[in-house]
Amino acid sequence: MPANLACVVDAVRARTPLVHCLMATVSMGIVADGLLAAGARPMMTETQAEAPTMDALADALLINLGTLSTDAMAGIPPTVDSARAAGRPWVLDPTAVGVAPVRTQLARELGTRSPVVVRGNASEVVALAGAGAGGRGADARHGVREALAAARWLARRNGCVVSISGDVDLVTNGNRVVGVHSGHPLLARVTGTGCLLGGLVAACCAVAPPFEAALAASAWLGAAGERAAATASGPGSFKTALIDALDTLTAADIAAVRCEEE
Amino acid sequence: MPANLACVVDAVRARTPLVHCLMATVSMGIVADGLLAAGARPMMTETQAEAPTMDALADALLINLGTLSTDAMAGIPPTVDSARAAGRPWVLDPTAVGVAPVRTQLARELGTRSPVVVRGNASEVVALAGAGAGGRGADARHGVREALAAARWLARRNGCVVSISGDVDLVTNGNRVVGVHSGHPLLARVTGTGCLLGGLVAACCAVAPPFEAALAASAWLGAAGERAAATASGPGSFKTALIDALDTLTAADIAAVRCEEE
Amino acid sequence: MPANLACVVDAVRARTPLVHCLMATVSMGIVADGLLAAGARPMMTETQAEAPTMDALADALLINLGTLSTDAMAGIPPTVDSARAAGRPWVLDPTAVGVAPVRTQLARELGTRSPVVVRGNASEVVALAGAGAGGRGADARHGVREALAAARWLARRNGCVVSISGDVDLVTNGNRVVGVHSGHPLLARVTGTGCLLGGLVAACCAVAPPFEAALAASAWLGAAGERAAATASGPGSFKTALIDALDTLTAADIAAVRCEEE
Repeated sequence: MPANLACVVDAVRARTPLVHCLMATVSMGIVADGLLAAGARPMMTETQAEAPTMDALADALLINLGTLSTDAMAGIPPTVDSARAAGRPWVLDPTAVGVAPVRTQLARELGTRSPVVVRGNASEVVALAGAGAGGRGADARHGVREALAAARWLARRNGCVVSISGDVDLVTNGNRVVGVHSGHPLLARVTGTGCLLGGLVAACCAVAPPFEAALAASAWLGAAGERAAATASGPGSFKTALIDALDTLTAADIAAVRCEEE
Repeated sequence: MPANLACVVDAVRARTPLVHCLMATVSMGIVADGLLAAGARPMMTETQAEAPTMDALADALLINLGTLSTDAMAGIPPTVDSARAAGRPWVLDPTAVGVAPVRTQLARELGTRSPVVVRGNASEVVALAGAGAGGRGADARHGVREALAAARWLARRNGCVVSISGDVDLVTNGNRVVGVHSGHPLLARVTGTGCLLGGLVAACCAVAPPFEAALAASAWLGAAGERAAATASGPGSFKTALIDALDTLTAADIAAVRCEEE
Repeated sequence: MPANLACVVDAVRARTPLVHCLMATVSMGIVADGLLAAGARPMMTETQAEAPTMDALADALLINLGTLSTDAMAGIPPTVDSARAAGRPWVLDPTAVGVAPVRTQLARELGTRSPVVVRGNASEVVALAGAGAGGRGADARHGVREALAAARWLARRNGCVVSISGDVDLVTNGNRVVGVHSGHPLLARVTGTGCLLGGLVAACCAVAPPFEAALAASAWLGAAGERAAATASGPGSFKTALIDALDTLTAADIAAVRCEEE
């Protein structure tokens, strides 16, 4: 990865962006702890009564459809509007889009409201583009490269960056496609690591342009997963070591991650 | 434990069942991480707007009354109906039944809707059967054997298996009673280990008959607790090691757990 | 710290108080696990339908404004009334007061309903007293000593103890001010450690007068943070070791914490 990209990591640590997250209840803990370990700061209010107001304090916004509570269903649209009106970057993680009409309609509608990055697994990206019926829960049934056409189409139509998570993470702005070659299978054995990637993307978007932010976040989490796997005895100790690694990895460590134009 | 019972563990890992959990907010993280470590996959949507629809993707359903949010209160009944209509196994964990009228009424009503397994501590089983006033929060005031008559009665009336958690776990179908002799006191020093047992029961019900599923799940968590306690320095490191052990224990390890007809 | 104060720790372990927590969703896990490690027991129901009723089982109540769900917004006032009517001690953690009108109004209203302890960071204490515009999310922009005048004023007006968390924790009843000199910077790198302090204060209030309870809780968490930092490799392993230390620290360890009248 080019050194200037890896320096996004240093910028997050220097500026400690406040990342407002409306997200899956089950993943709140790992995303908040992961953001703090990375050097950012989390805020997780989701109600219509407070989230649009409190978003004004934030440096970036993450909308993750996750468990999609009634509070979040009502709070997400005005919070996105609040961020857009103020020019704050916001990231869409269309969790499980395609598996229930409520979230599919909401995700597609949100996709047109100028997220700077859409991050999902291959099935979610395909479903968001309307080209498929989606995955099973938060799982991906499609391979990453099978979703590339859908990702390009979404990126061009919405003027955003799309990041497809998988064995390789592919990031595209509709024209360029860059693959980030890092990570470890244990990342899929811990709840919320995909949500955490969305949080890191949002944190990086507070300090860097969206394309660079998406690449840096993928490399950061992927390298942390590799480092954690080197000492882990199973998914429990891996999760603990992953949070440690988000803190201890240096920009030079991130720069060692292989990134290639496709 | 008979080797064929212990092989339920291998079946979960081979088939990676999707377990839909409507449950205590505070326990979502450990249940999701525990299911992933065991080889199953969690899904945790609870709203009336989505849970009944998304349940169609699942292989088994866990209803845990837990913190019983307004969303869950509305979402649980139609989700149970969705599972029943499709013939999917569902497990009832009547958390803290008996301590507030809302959950007591809901739990008793759900008990008549054909759960394949009811899992609770002794006080919960007694309260669900209407024979007592329940415990304190998620604690048990009754001993396991004091709840056996209530468990047998529930099992016969509802045509289900009842699993009573405690120092020994007792599993009954109304006739047979089998005790699973495993576990460790540190399991009670970590939030949500009882909820996790319910999740493992549901995962096992996706691949085995309910009686065998309940036994295998108790042995799996109990053996994991013993292994984790061997290296833990306190409840924090125990929790981490417990998740690791759910992953690393083999069917042969589970088969070494003592199970005895009572 | 005087040995009799440190013995509050032994009293919590002997009496295992049930602490009812209405609080930030993101922090539920660490607060529940921390309370269990300390020897207390958590209960986390927040709905208006159940929380006021179930509070009758508890020995102390923690109200943490946290993510302030719609359920909690409706459930908090009647639950506080239930605790007050029965003479149970309750602790107010006015998270992020000052940053949104909904929570600011609620926090100030609750402040007049006789909490035995108010615990917050400096910015929250200042905002609760109406003397400032609050912090950013759960962060503190004020130094601890800058909030002391506001804390004294709150303590005198409401007849309560106010505990200001920071590099030194200052505890005042409006007249006396005692500083607790313990803790570690890694405590701020893990989500919910401030919420956990609120939980420990509530647990200690179940077995000791509020001033002593607030001091003992600060020393307990601070000493646990120091012990955890001695072995941690980053924020992930620190969190695990922190939970362990809440369990393994003795009253003599807590007594070694420096406490000084200011």
